[in-house]
Amino acid sequence: MFFRLISSGLLLRVSNVGSTNMAAGSRKCSTTRLRYLTQKEAIALDEELFNEYKFSVDQLMELAGLSVATAVSRTFPVSTHPSALIICGPGNNGGDGLVAARHMSLFGYNVSIHYPKRTPKPLFENLLAQCVAFGVDIVENLPPPQQLCDHYQVLVDALFGFSFKPPVREELKPAMTAMIEATIPVCSVDIPSGWHVEKGPGIAKALRPALLISLSAPKMCAQSEFILDAKHYLGGRFLPPGILHKYFLRLPPYPCEDQVVLLSC
Amino acid sequence: MFFRLISSGLLLRVSNVGSTNMAAGSRKCSTTRLRYLTQKEAIALDEELFNEYKFSVDQLMELAGLSVATAVSRTFPVSTHPSALIICGPGNNGGDGLVAARHMSLFGYNVSIHYPKRTPKPLFENLLAQCVAFGVDIVENLPPPQQLCDHYQVLVDALFGFSFKPPVREELKPAMTAMIEATIPVCSVDIPSGWHVEKGPGIAKALRPALLISLSAPKMCAQSEFILDAKHYLGGRFLPPGILHKYFLRLPPYPCEDQVVLLSC
Repeated sequence: MFFRLISSGLLLRVSNVGSTNMAAGSRKCSTTRLRYLTQKEAIALDEELFNEYKFSVDQLMELAGLSVATAVSRTFPVSTHPSALIICGPGNNGGDGLVAARHMSLFGYNVSIHYPKRTPKPLFENLLAQCVAFGVDIVENLPPPQQLCDHYQVLVDALFGFSFKPPVREELKPAMTAMIEATIPVCSVDIPSGWHVEKGPGIAKALRPALLISLSAPKMCAQSEFILDAKHYLGGRFLPPGILHKYFLRLPPYPCEDQVVLLSC
Repeated sequence: MFFRLISSGLLLRVSNVGSTNMAAGSRKCSTTRLRYLTQKEAIALDEELFNEYKFSVDQLMELAGLSVATAVSRTFPVSTHPSALIICGPGNNGGDGLVAARHMSLFGYNVSIHYPKRTPKPLFENLLAQCVAFGVDIVENLPPPQQLCDHYQVLVDALFGFSFKPPVREELKPAMTAMIEATIPVCSVDIPSGWHVEKGPGIAKALRPALLISLSAPKMCAQSEFILDAKHYLGGRFLPPGILHKYFLRLPPYPCEDQVVLLSC
């Protein structure tokens, strides 16, 4: 693995072609050379999946949320991290978080959700109802960031996705601050919240996730030096060949039937 | 494992409590003592998932189809069974087959579908469009059963599910005959097609699948002596605690993040 500076000044991580075995069985650390999406490409790709490829939001959110839950479980297993707090935003990233919450509950975690700005759409209301039926706890008021570790061993950041543009709106700032200041590991869904999709963290006091789960394909900010030490999984195993071709995507092969593949170790 | 005869004359397989390690890693052969659903229970449980627990068909069909693809891939891997034919019926069982076809394509199989009676509902039309986008071949006319092995190494039976009541309608008989007479292994989705959901195969010349993937919970026919030698997986990892409690379900624990669990080896 080596680094290079691009014109924007962002320190990039460029991976070598090939793959390295990480552990026994099907879990490999793939280091296939990747292509990273811009914000515009990520938005266009998403729209094509729905409009041209006829996927429903329900379908893809289910697979995305399952990927997130799987990557979290592999990185921070329930045996050592039994209680998880998932912070859900108002958009589809938050929906992925709601789905992940249900699957993590099925994996045996004690799951809580903080969902400060709810989305008044039937799908999101139903996803929340499913969480409640699975015993997921709804946390209305977050404890101070330094006290999160008294209640939880891992946080999942499902606050903002690839459509986010700064600044963070006032009502979501406490959730953002909680994740930045927490002393327990944060797992970011697709984009570390608050980051620019292409340029990465714009401020010194930015979120530094311990795990990033890129969905469908990694976005440009995933190359930032801010997450050099983070685990990086790819999930959302649902891209049709036409999308791979159109966006010149070079994705590593998923092992066997896995819904995630490890990109960096 | 031992057997007992119940009043209906159906030879039952009754498993011991406990679990046995089958292979390294997370794949276990669980032999937890199970409870099997009647047809009426299976229908009621399904309706509750949609009506009370607010799941959409899209969500559960996606997870069910992923389970099917996973179980097929683990039993008949793409390395030895590269070409698969999936026979899809007009109901939700056929929809599970369409989803499984897409995931099997993602797993690397050359997938073909025979879908003799299509369902004029948007979800089913979209699932079929997704298959086409993934390069799945649509087979209008089946070759004679004995020649299926010239084209495929494995069949997936997604013709009828737990709502089926005999007899098989005329237009679907060729598909039924193909699966009964084929010389390659058949993998049945939830119910071996043509079987009574509770009493199992009613005729001597019935389908004998090599793999059964029960979805959500096994149905009574899964105890039949006709599939004593079959692999039996449970999939559809989405039942909320309230359903488990209401139906007194004793399901084996799924290993880690797996979407299937092996019930018999």
